Amino acid sequence: MEKVLIAGQWRDANASSSFQAANPSTRELLEAQYPVSTWQDCDEALTAAAAAAVALRNVSGVQIAEFLEAYAAEIEVNAEAIVEMAHAETAYPKETRLAGGEMPRTTNQLRQAAAAAKDGSWALPTIDTATGIRSVYGAIGPVCVFGPNNFPLAFGSASGGDFAAAIAAGNPVIAKANSSHPGTTKLFAECAQRAAEATGMPTGMVQLIYRTSHEDGERLVSDDRIGATGYTGSRHAGLKLKQAADLAGKPIYLELSSVNPVAILPGALAERGAEIAEEFSGSCLMGTGQFCTNPGLVLLLAGEATNQFIEAITAKFTEAPVGTLLSAGVEKSLASNLQVLVDAGAELLVGNSAADQGRFCYANTLLQITASQFLADPITMQTEAFGNSSLICVADSVDQLAQVVSTLEGNLTGCIYSDTAGSDDQAYDQIASEMRVKVGRLLNDKMPTGVAVSAAMNHGGPFPATGHPAFTAVGIPGALLRFGMLQCYDNVRPHRLPCILKDESPNGTVWRSVDGAWTQASIG
Amino acid sequence: MEKVLIAGQWRDANASSSFQAANPSTRELLEAQYPVSTWQDCDEALTAAAAAAVALRNVSGVQIAEFLEAYAAEIEVNAEAIVEMAHAETAYPKETRLAGGEMPRTTNQLRQAAAAAKDGSWALPTIDTATGIRSVYGAIGPVCVFGPNNFPLAFGSASGGDFAAAIAAGNPVIAKANSSHPGTTKLFAECAQRAAEATGMPTGMVQLIYRTSHEDGERLVSDDRIGATGYTGSRHAGLKLKQAADLAGKPIYLELSSVNPVAILPGALAERGAEIAEEFSGSCLMGTGQFCTNPGLVLLLAGEATNQFIEAITAKFTEAPVGTLLSAGVEKSLASNLQVLVDAGAELLVGNSAADQGRFCYANTLLQITASQFLADPITMQTEAFGNSSLICVADSVDQLAQVVSTLEGNLTGCIYSDTAGSDDQAYDQIASEMRVKVGRLLNDKMPTGVAVSAAMNHGGPFPATGHPAFTAVGIPGALLRFGMLQCYDNVRPHRLPCILKDESPNGTVWRSVDGAWTQASIG
Repeated sequence: MEKVLIAGQWRDANASSSFQAANPSTRELLEAQYPVSTWQDCDEALTAAAAAAVALRNVSGVQIAEFLEAYAAEIEVNAEAIVEMAHAETAYPKETRLAGGEMPRTTNQLRQAAAAAKDGSWALPTIDTATGIRSVYGAIGPVCVFGPNNFPLAFGSASGGDFAAAIAAGNPVIAKANSSHPGTTKLFAECAQRAAEATGMPTGMVQLIYRTSHEDGERLVSDDRIGATGYTGSRHAGLKLKQAADLAGKPIYLELSSVNPVAILPGALAERGAEIAEEFSGSCLMGTGQFCTNPGLVLLLAGEATNQFIEAITAKFTEAPVGTLLSAGVEKSLASNLQVLVDAGAELLVGNSAADQGRFCYANTLLQITASQFLADPITMQTEAFGNSSLICVADSVDQLAQVVSTLEGNLTGCIYSDTAGSDDQAYDQIASEMRVKVGRLLNDKMPTGVAVSAAMNHGGPFPATGHPAFTAVGIPGALLRFGMLQCYDNVRPHRLPCILKDESPNGTVWRSVDGAWTQASIG
Repeated sequence: MEKVLIAGQWRDANASSSFQAANPSTRELLEAQYPVSTWQDCDEALTAAAAAAVALRNVSGVQIAEFLEAYAAEIEVNAEAIVEMAHAETAYPKETRLAGGEMPRTTNQLRQAAAAAKDGSWALPTIDTATGIRSVYGAIGPVCVFGPNNFPLAFGSASGGDFAAAIAAGNPVIAKANSSHPGTTKLFAECAQRAAEATGMPTGMVQLIYRTSHEDGERLVSDDRIGATGYTGSRHAGLKLKQAADLAGKPIYLELSSVNPVAILPGALAERGAEIAEEFSGSCLMGTGQFCTNPGLVLLLAGEATNQFIEAITAKFTEAPVGTLLSAGVEKSLASNLQVLVDAGAELLVGNSAADQGRFCYANTLLQITASQFLADPITMQTEAFGNSSLICVADSVDQLAQVVSTLEGNLTGCIYSDTAGSDDQAYDQIASEMRVKVGRLLNDKMPTGVAVSAAMNHGGPFPATGHPAFTAVGIPGALLRFGMLQCYDNVRPHRLPCILKDESPNGTVWRSVDGAWTQASIG
């Protein structure tokens, strides 16, 4: 049985049972056995995390940056083993996806987080010299991270965006591995622990548990010792955790589900329909469609160009190789959610059938409905079928299309394709106005699957895309704010202020709002 | 029966029943009858608010600022009538509290909000020129405001901090009046409606309902058409609303309860004990103690100076006139919460008895416990007795005092008094380290009751002081962020960007983070 990492020690779990990950390419279980921890493990991890949070009060952003830098370097030393393990557990291609894509994204993200921790601007230090009041975001306390199945590296519980943000904001992390890739998460935690020791981080800075009961998960996120939780995963499980955390008044940041509407206007189809068909198919089938921002709902206006577009993408979905899915669970959910749409009246264009029996997969699938069908039951028609599928919705008029958009739940993204000559402009304005308030990120002429790690990125959106529309899970420094609490100092004697709020800038780089103006300068 | 303001019209409510406010100075009901609205009123208000939110997409911050300015001016024209009504409904002194204090605070706050709306810096516009990604906080949608009983003007549902912040962030407001002062709220709503009409705001920009059933309140905050809710009031009612809003994924910002610990260290007592006794008594009895930041828990170290301090404040509480309380409900809660503390073993120093029968009031009360008693049952000992009372807790050692602080729930504020010679410095460090993570605002040598409207203010704190430790209810521009959603634009064509994100600055004053640097300049 593999060991958990608690209070700085790799030790035997207090396990109620065990589980194995599967190789998606063969459907066969991998050898390693991982423990399902009992509450005792959670409790010990919480105690160690709480002690680490106390110790971190005296650890500077510069020191945390050293840890994150050392960790990124340690990952690079062990990159081959991590990629090998992630490939075995997820079947993602080694070169193009893992080594060439997620791996550099992961280390870059950790280094951006290091830079943010060192600089301090993320914490929005604000100084009012007239009243003697100063405030800044400080550490919120131990953060529990539940990583998703679909990004074993870049969103991994002990390596990804939530982890990097929580640590950079000054918090210890309890990582709950995703059951699809516990071995990958373990390798990361080993690197993190070595880096933490080498850079003198407090014991319990990074801890790892592989799995708990649902009940213990809910207890974990609502425990007194927890500061906040980051969760990316299924809507059902996420809402259970949200309910528990909410009742305890503990912030929980969730990324739950999103169909990512893509409206393609007639002028755009006339101008470059074939090109857009290529873009759409690539975006929807990439990674076997297992992206939070997969384009799962395509909005079109009835007409000849739309018919041709649908024919073109249907052909592409027919011809494209069927990718491997991450798990039996993803395969099953994809099939059952597509069935929900079919039962609700969606017409089958291609797919919706089992594919190769020797691995986790399902045929590339396109379904089609009319906007009238959508409007008759908008909630059912927004069922997310996570994977290599999409629902095409054809409206009779721009008004009707706008009406469809106005009934959407919250989404991470929304895209609108329009022509360059301006014939779509009026329709664009109408649809964009509705879409803007339904999505976190509005795109033009571009599929939603690329999520740049940019300071201006919003990987977030209104419920149920996430739990709160004011926060982003991707993008540094923005993502750090989720793991900060606003700490105000009123009439506090100058020498007792944290360095970042003293008159003299601690580093000359941190941006501070001083009497209403942002500046990097010291005061006076 | 008084009329509600829905969809721009003062009209008869769909009422299930009616209620009257009371004059706290006489315990007698005031004449005016206010309706308890049924769901139909809520539903119509929601529909109008949703339509207003759509119309507001095309209303600029400059126009919203015009409305807020016009509203502030309108309030000043009607100040006398408002003060008169608020005095009748709350018994707060006209000159010192209402006309001289809350009134200018209210109009200043509205004008600060206007300036923030006009300028736009509150929305943290962020531009990444390399990736073509830009983001900014935009309106979250209709905001429901439940104002508290204790600030009829400055935190009033249709006039106070939440109202000003929600409007300045670009949202319509549905104000739910506090039942203690419906007439005051009505006068404000009349001013607001006139100002909204004069400045061309959409119909439904400001609406007023006086009261609903609890069930309809929960339905209101969780309705699809709502963007967010601001609530200040009792913990019990607030938690019910929170649960409903959380389940629907609707942000709700709550200010619930706080005992506002004040630690007074021995050196400070030796140095200026008499002065601090005066400060404490003034802060605790001001406004009959009806402040969110009332010092309700005083932490002391056993010793002769502490005994003298307790004697001094007991004498002051005995001598001080007994103020009037806001309502029969406040009077009853104060008595019953003090009884909880007494039942738990608190010793009576002074008060804890009925006072003048002709008005709402209760004797100025001080209770005392040991730190051991506190630690034996910290949750009960943190029972908030809202009003002119405080609980004195005496510890045997600094360690024990720090332990008391470490068991505190989240609070709005925490204060530490220490001497100027440095003899308290070690104790300060130990206690401040614990207190920092328990409170939104940490003060030195100053009572917590003053809450400056400063950009650096945090009138917030960890649960249960508020619902989320990252937000402040007071302070502009910070308070506006609660009513914004993060809106990202990815590859959106330049002419389609909102003005605040275009290369050219819309006004030359807005601070924008461009490629990591804050600037007021246009790009390129």
